[in-house]
Amino acid sequence: MTTGKQLFTTLAADGTLTVAIEEVTFPEPKGKQVLVKMEAAPINPSDLAILVGAAEMDTAEYSPGKFVARMPEPFNTGNKARHGLKLPAGNEGAGTVVAAGEDEEAQALIGQRVSCVPGHAFSQYAIADATLCLPLGDHSAEEGASAFVNPMTALGFVETARRDGQQALVHTVGASNLGQMLTRICNEDGIGLVNIVRKDDQVQVLKDLGASHVVNSASDDLEQRLQDAIADTGAFYGFDPIGGGKTVDTVFRAMEAVAARDMTDYSRYGSNQHKQMFIYGRLDSSPTVLTPSYGFGWTLSGWLVFPFMQSAGQEVVGRMRKRVLDNLTTTFASHYKSRVTLEEMLTKEAVTDYRQMKTGEKYLVTPWG
Amino acid sequence: MTTGKQLFTTLAADGTLTVAIEEVTFPEPKGKQVLVKMEAAPINPSDLAILVGAAEMDTAEYSPGKFVARMPEPFNTGNKARHGLKLPAGNEGAGTVVAAGEDEEAQALIGQRVSCVPGHAFSQYAIADATLCLPLGDHSAEEGASAFVNPMTALGFVETARRDGQQALVHTVGASNLGQMLTRICNEDGIGLVNIVRKDDQVQVLKDLGASHVVNSASDDLEQRLQDAIADTGAFYGFDPIGGGKTVDTVFRAMEAVAARDMTDYSRYGSNQHKQMFIYGRLDSSPTVLTPSYGFGWTLSGWLVFPFMQSAGQEVVGRMRKRVLDNLTTTFASHYKSRVTLEEMLTKEAVTDYRQMKTGEKYLVTPWG
Repeated sequence: MTTGKQLFTTLAADGTLTVAIEEVTFPEPKGKQVLVKMEAAPINPSDLAILVGAAEMDTAEYSPGKFVARMPEPFNTGNKARHGLKLPAGNEGAGTVVAAGEDEEAQALIGQRVSCVPGHAFSQYAIADATLCLPLGDHSAEEGASAFVNPMTALGFVETARRDGQQALVHTVGASNLGQMLTRICNEDGIGLVNIVRKDDQVQVLKDLGASHVVNSASDDLEQRLQDAIADTGAFYGFDPIGGGKTVDTVFRAMEAVAARDMTDYSRYGSNQHKQMFIYGRLDSSPTVLTPSYGFGWTLSGWLVFPFMQSAGQEVVGRMRKRVLDNLTTTFASHYKSRVTLEEMLTKEAVTDYRQMKTGEKYLVTPWG
Repeated sequence: MTTGKQLFTTLAADGTLTVAIEEVTFPEPKGKQVLVKMEAAPINPSDLAILVGAAEMDTAEYSPGKFVARMPEPFNTGNKARHGLKLPAGNEGAGTVVAAGEDEEAQALIGQRVSCVPGHAFSQYAIADATLCLPLGDHSAEEGASAFVNPMTALGFVETARRDGQQALVHTVGASNLGQMLTRICNEDGIGLVNIVRKDDQVQVLKDLGASHVVNSASDDLEQRLQDAIADTGAFYGFDPIGGGKTVDTVFRAMEAVAARDMTDYSRYGSNQHKQMFIYGRLDSSPTVLTPSYGFGWTLSGWLVFPFMQSAGQEVVGRMRKRVLDNLTTTFASHYKSRVTLEEMLTKEAVTDYRQMKTGEKYLVTPWG
């Protein structure tokens, strides 16, 4: 019987969000499952949605290992599917396999330090799928904690683009941890990349990584600069984790303006240049707004790494995983601003800081202190 | 030298929209071109965008064969690509081929009545592409005037759906001329169809055509009825000509609610059921609004009949055209409320009426009176 601390997040129908550490008993791993003693887990933007979301954290009640906050409307109703459910959190992390199901692949991992994707990584132990575990060899848990979400997502963008015959892409949050990885990958693979950032110092960060096209969305001539970068790279294809507001619309409009440069006749239906964007996150939970400004030659889709991996198949995913492991401390390195225990991550000081999702200020949870 | 009357629409940079009949000389047809003496041309919703758009028609100045109206913002600026251009109008129509280019296919049409897609059908003569002409045999010009846009679009929906492995679809304007055609096609082909309409009497119109699932968007229990119809047909795929506002969002939300019925675990990323919608028109020129309510398993695209035909290839298009011709007065019949000359279509009475695009109240332009 393995027991330990685990974080749970519960949204009640009345909008009360309770996030608390509990002492729980972990089940025996079965089949392809392994039980991992978790050593490090990053707080990713995708974790924040379920951990904090749009809750009012300034007025929350904080006590040791727990906070209780109010979820305002329309977000409370928008999350009614989770009302009353006590949910775990933490997509990924790294730790040591201490037990395994009867499956051979699972058994082979016993005693090894692995990167894993349990979906409840904010915990002292986690049940993980052996097929998604990445044995880390001599790497530390901190080095391997973020080996899945950002690396596989960034590589997934490039694979998806190639599958659609694209040689260049736009990324709307260039300076993020994932954006920096994507910049390195595109450089290595000779893929054109238009990075959009929000601040001048982020322009420099990316230039230092070798980025050729960085556009600051705060600049007065954003539209012109974005158009020039798209024309230069031929990027009529891109990825956006913001989701809400007009980010995608701005990119589509710039793509269409570039395509229109080559049109000799006016067409009320827009250019024949197909424009494609993917929304892979919801940093802005307001609605996505698409103006009728770029005809009918466009496609907008949601994109997530797990469905992508399913569609890509084992061989492609295997090749991606090997590339991550081979370049864990270079191309795919993640950096952390702070390390917190499970209890510390629920303090006002920590929550207030990490929920801002500032570029380069990622938190790492170390559940054993 | 062939001369005749033709309609032109010009939007000046200051927002002045001038639509007027002019006497022009038509060029000699070359290559695969034919010169068609136009006998009938429908005013389709897709024509209205360029003919009237969002112009203020109540305060327009009307004179014989001409009106001058103000285009308000943001629509004037939104149309800046056409500022100063004198554009023809009228996607399709029917008439008799009176001259042809040297190409054999074109020559073979001389003397025949054809349905054609000149893009300037509001005219006494038009230069058309012979490869897109449909010889009408003994059919009248009125019977053949709308043989392209609506029939090929409705058939294109079904072809597109089949290509994507779909057996059912949602159409958001079920009672439109196109919607009625689609209802007949889906019945003939055994494709499930969820029709959304705006009024109770439209429900009856479609039921009389044999429609099995008709949902009135004005009803209080729209969401529940839409969900039930989607669950019944398995339609996670659909087409929308409204474009602006929340129509697509409403359909996506209903699709996701149906998919969630089968989910045992809560997922903050939404269901695994892929949801796909196509916007094929802009009856509402306000922005498209997509709320973050259905995870990441969705795709929204623009859709137009010409790009579809290019991607479908000659064999498929040939089969579609034959089906249209074989069923011109049944499956693909169009009905007209009024017949107007080129001059009459620019009167206040006519414009005020046809710009409302009321269901079943289509206008037919007969340029020779």
